[in-house]
Amino acid sequence: MEHTQLPKGFYSCAKRLGIKDDTPDFTVIYSETRAAAAAMFTKNQFCGAPVTVGKEHIKDGFLQAFVINSKNANVATGNQGIQDVHTIIAAVAEELTISPEDILPSSTGVIGVPLPVQKIIDGIPGLRGELKKDGLKDSAEAIMTTDTFAKYRSEEIDGVTLCAIAKGSGMIEPNMATMLSYIMTDAQIEPETLKAVLKRAVDVSFNMVSVDGDTSTSDTVAAMANGLAGPVDLEKFEQVLTDMLVSLAKDLARDGEGATKLVEVQVDGAKNDNEAKAMMKSIINSPLVKTAIFGADPNWGRIISTIGNAEYPIEPKKVSVAFGNIPVFSGGEPAESNLEDLESYLEGDEIVISISLGDGPGKATGWGCDLSYDYVRINGEYTT
Amino acid sequence: MEHTQLPKGFYSCAKRLGIKDDTPDFTVIYSETRAAAAAMFTKNQFCGAPVTVGKEHIKDGFLQAFVINSKNANVATGNQGIQDVHTIIAAVAEELTISPEDILPSSTGVIGVPLPVQKIIDGIPGLRGELKKDGLKDSAEAIMTTDTFAKYRSEEIDGVTLCAIAKGSGMIEPNMATMLSYIMTDAQIEPETLKAVLKRAVDVSFNMVSVDGDTSTSDTVAAMANGLAGPVDLEKFEQVLTDMLVSLAKDLARDGEGATKLVEVQVDGAKNDNEAKAMMKSIINSPLVKTAIFGADPNWGRIISTIGNAEYPIEPKKVSVAFGNIPVFSGGEPAESNLEDLESYLEGDEIVISISLGDGPGKATGWGCDLSYDYVRINGEYTT
Repeated sequence: MEHTQLPKGFYSCAKRLGIKDDTPDFTVIYSETRAAAAAMFTKNQFCGAPVTVGKEHIKDGFLQAFVINSKNANVATGNQGIQDVHTIIAAVAEELTISPEDILPSSTGVIGVPLPVQKIIDGIPGLRGELKKDGLKDSAEAIMTTDTFAKYRSEEIDGVTLCAIAKGSGMIEPNMATMLSYIMTDAQIEPETLKAVLKRAVDVSFNMVSVDGDTSTSDTVAAMANGLAGPVDLEKFEQVLTDMLVSLAKDLARDGEGATKLVEVQVDGAKNDNEAKAMMKSIINSPLVKTAIFGADPNWGRIISTIGNAEYPIEPKKVSVAFGNIPVFSGGEPAESNLEDLESYLEGDEIVISISLGDGPGKATGWGCDLSYDYVRINGEYTT
Repeated sequence: MEHTQLPKGFYSCAKRLGIKDDTPDFTVIYSETRAAAAAMFTKNQFCGAPVTVGKEHIKDGFLQAFVINSKNANVATGNQGIQDVHTIIAAVAEELTISPEDILPSSTGVIGVPLPVQKIIDGIPGLRGELKKDGLKDSAEAIMTTDTFAKYRSEEIDGVTLCAIAKGSGMIEPNMATMLSYIMTDAQIEPETLKAVLKRAVDVSFNMVSVDGDTSTSDTVAAMANGLAGPVDLEKFEQVLTDMLVSLAKDLARDGEGATKLVEVQVDGAKNDNEAKAMMKSIINSPLVKTAIFGADPNWGRIISTIGNAEYPIEPKKVSVAFGNIPVFSGGEPAESNLEDLESYLEGDEIVISISLGDGPGKATGWGCDLSYDYVRINGEYTT
């Protein structure tokens, strides 16, 4: 995964501005030409100040830079928060001689604490000279909060390059968007097309992940396509983008706060995909299921209980449940399985739970993680 | 709380049958006359075998005994589970010379494991001779699973006695019912009246508690009124019953699995009570809020984020949030509060979070607990 080169015409830099500690906390990702752009944002009604501004700036379908800080979300910070965003993007726009309206700002970190805006402003002069072609990994590192590893991908499609970075570890239940993810390509794609492709890819990737059922105030996924490598086979592009975002989504789940295991939940036989997705989410978010998986406890009755709480009718006798290839329940009765096989399967670090409802063609696959002592530790002492 | 006398004409016994270990695991609560009765059950579609049978037996509005085992829920156990229930209540009916249809059976404990029915049957002969008047506390102990203390109450109302017991510690998010709770009174009340009074009392007590957002497959609350002490002022009765169930509901939250703090969430200013209740539930169930309270971390931004995820429109500028008497957010801005005051408030063992939405007359108060290392430990090794 050491392809850290950005697509043609893209440059980035990452800095340590001391927003909270001395880790990388600020990045600018810049395209030398204005790029077709699309973005999706959190549905949280207390969205962050940068989200409010970013929604305005994406409206015309073009951007030239992403400006992102970690360690402070600039959320619930009132009018001062909005002013702080404008101060920062004005400074970046002047440094890069681009329009402030072509900048999409993002912030991620603690909520309700004023942004230390002066520290950021002080870091901007001279930033143009630090931009580099191979900055993909550095940018991925600069947007991390409680993440334990940088999440980035790069692929070639017939001479076109597609790169993406993502962050997210806690407060993860994306709703039509995700935590932070940025996609850069030199493919030539119209804004409206980019938006449609992005939405479809996000729906089966980031929107299928949940770490703790809480939708963040800062979720943003944004893409820039600057066209410098010419046109691309759109079908191929969408497939590669979708695979890339699914892969990053699984990284988010695997790196969920305190996680020791990646959990994949596959639901089929629901009346429709929405009902399958709702069932998937309820399993992936159940603290009882998550703690049992952490403890490798073969307590599959908790899956049954969660299924039974569906808001739509279930026929218990048609339901079957398996862990990996080990059936545990079918036809209204416990399956004849070896409990020891199940226990040893649960000791693994990737757990697949499959549920068939036997009621229709609806299906969904999603990802989450277990609930460990470390989740409690990380979230019991987050700000202090 | 040492009033362990049952109301007139009620008797109970508690036994250790070795269903899982050597703690009390079986109780029979018996009225010497048939009693007006009402009950509410889980909405979980995988409801336990005893719930299926209990729903039939309550239909005529009369019961004469509750028969309850802990340590095994008899859920997801197929046809054998139903047969096991009938075997047990037939044996109890014979021992007590009452009709099997006047028995309400309940089971609570692990899901998906066949009930060790022979151990229960072996414990029934001679049980009639063990029934006693002061069995309230013993019965409350016999229905415990992961509970750390017995939950029971007794009150007098103008010569009438009202007693209740409850259990519940994990898999608690009652939906129109609760974990297990049984109410015994010698007041004279018609079945239909008893049902209406019980429903209203449960709605503001057990239905306002959540430990982990999972509605159990076994939730049951049932009442018997045998009339042996004559009529009662119904308004007074309902008030005392409601207070009693609220008090037991707070016991359930305080004794939530691994809990170190009782959390009360008060929401007002919602458009209606249902929207207030939904908001209360989302705060009380947020793992991020629960872990912050466990760690006494003044990270109130997590409350803001959860409010922002409401499924109905919120006006952020009208929202205010306080911990106890300490405001943290109002008018769209962080409140000018002393962070040290907040930290020391959060060190307490009863935390009150008040939220005003400024949008209408709707209000709700509910109870939950923090999310601690012990919750993870208890649920990571439940069956093994």
